[in-house]
Amino acid sequence: MREEATAFVPGHITGFFSAHPDDDPTKAGSRGAGVTLTHGVEVTVEPTPETESTIVLDGTPVDVDPVGTVLETLEVTARVEATSDVPIGAGFGVSGAMALGTALAANRVFDRTLSTNELVTVAHGAEVQAGTGLGDVVAQAHGGIPIRLEPGGPHENALDSIPACTRVEYISFGQLSTADVLSGDTEALTVAGERALSTIVAEPTLESFMYASRRFAREAGLLTDRVKTTVDEVAAVDGEASMAMLGETVFALGTGLTDAGYEPAVCETHPAGATLTD
Amino acid sequence: MREEATAFVPGHITGFFSAHPDDDPTKAGSRGAGVTLTHGVEVTVEPTPETESTIVLDGTPVDVDPVGTVLETLEVTARVEATSDVPIGAGFGVSGAMALGTALAANRVFDRTLSTNELVTVAHGAEVQAGTGLGDVVAQAHGGIPIRLEPGGPHENALDSIPACTRVEYISFGQLSTADVLSGDTEALTVAGERALSTIVAEPTLESFMYASRRFAREAGLLTDRVKTTVDEVAAVDGEASMAMLGETVFALGTGLTDAGYEPAVCETHPAGATLTD
Repeated sequence: MREEATAFVPGHITGFFSAHPDDDPTKAGSRGAGVTLTHGVEVTVEPTPETESTIVLDGTPVDVDPVGTVLETLEVTARVEATSDVPIGAGFGVSGAMALGTALAANRVFDRTLSTNELVTVAHGAEVQAGTGLGDVVAQAHGGIPIRLEPGGPHENALDSIPACTRVEYISFGQLSTADVLSGDTEALTVAGERALSTIVAEPTLESFMYASRRFAREAGLLTDRVKTTVDEVAAVDGEASMAMLGETVFALGTGLTDAGYEPAVCETHPAGATLTD
Repeated sequence: MREEATAFVPGHITGFFSAHPDDDPTKAGSRGAGVTLTHGVEVTVEPTPETESTIVLDGTPVDVDPVGTVLETLEVTARVEATSDVPIGAGFGVSGAMALGTALAANRVFDRTLSTNELVTVAHGAEVQAGTGLGDVVAQAHGGIPIRLEPGGPHENALDSIPACTRVEYISFGQLSTADVLSGDTEALTVAGERALSTIVAEPTLESFMYASRRFAREAGLLTDRVKTTVDEVAAVDGEASMAMLGETVFALGTGLTDAGYEPAVCETHPAGATLTD
């Protein structure tokens, strides 16, 4: 058994989505599209002599249901230590990243000999069961600018991507609860999400992704005043911005937020999916 | 129209494979597994005022059939300039890399608005039609240590991967013609390839990949004396090495070739698939 293993999982901002529940969590999920980021979550797993696993995020002990489920599924007791470049609960897929990073690193430390698809399935199912996300895990396993054509884990879904790379800026004003939104009435959201998906399937470019994302945020009724103001300010300087699903977060391509007078966090789209780093 | 665009495509060493012909080149392909490398091919595409496309590899004008087919499929006339870190014709998937890099870069330069899957399909089909490869393109689009469970382009195939990263050493003694081997009797090869695939599906680890690859090379009758000697020398110092399909090339994990007294080229597995870099 190794002493520890570390995985990096890119952050993932969803631009638009539609929810597709299913009794089987490996079939449930979402369609949609987003950007994976060079900012993300690093997860280190090490065996622990304790009888219970512990999870630490940015130095603070936390309960993250999907991570607990992943450890139980792999039948391991471990100390999981995660550090995040991106804000928590603000639409960057931190819970999915922690679940996926834990799956990859625990598989290595404890010699579980699962394949990548099997590990992604475990993490995706754990995230769906916890109600903390529907599509982040499969997007984070893919990298780039993934388009989720069909919902579910790797054995069920269908993915494509936008062949592009770009600088991404973001600024977060606060949290929105994914679980609250997903447990509410998602019908308008799903209609808007399916329409957005048609748009970028017809033209898989960054420009149409941003257009479809802005229209989705408006039609799904998820825009907050603060986010709307900022997106409009970026548009006023000819920039491209939209809202991260689901957080009170604005992301922009290139220098959109900087040009509008903000001091945003700056990163790039991430070319790779989640990877073991050591 | 942009002035030019550049893509990086990782080299791909196939450890074992089985051939699956089909009249439809997007359905034809191979099953198997391999490693993608941080050493690869950089491809720059720019529009040309000439009436015919030109292709240059490491400074020398060349005919590379799959690249020509990709340009024709995208209906563009261009200058394609490629530089390769890896040897040509020696089992690193250079022709596939050039086809895929050309597809990604030409799509960007000429605003063809195809998705990644569509571009991979174009490059894979062009490679299959030319007889220069069966699985490199889809592996190079995926990155990591891909397992090709089902043959064909992205709309047909099924991929998984080994969740690992490693240093890779390689040394090349010369070329083997992929087209010659693939046009010969591939039955023994395909039986051996299917058996190797079962081995790593049951245990998707680096160790079982190397074991399955060595056994495949022996059973398929592809080992040359020079390659066999070197693989044995690495084994004698407790290293893991096998033969690149298809080239007179030996690749090893970690420091296998160095430990055996060689001065190999050194790289890592590549975490990402082919990507636009500019």
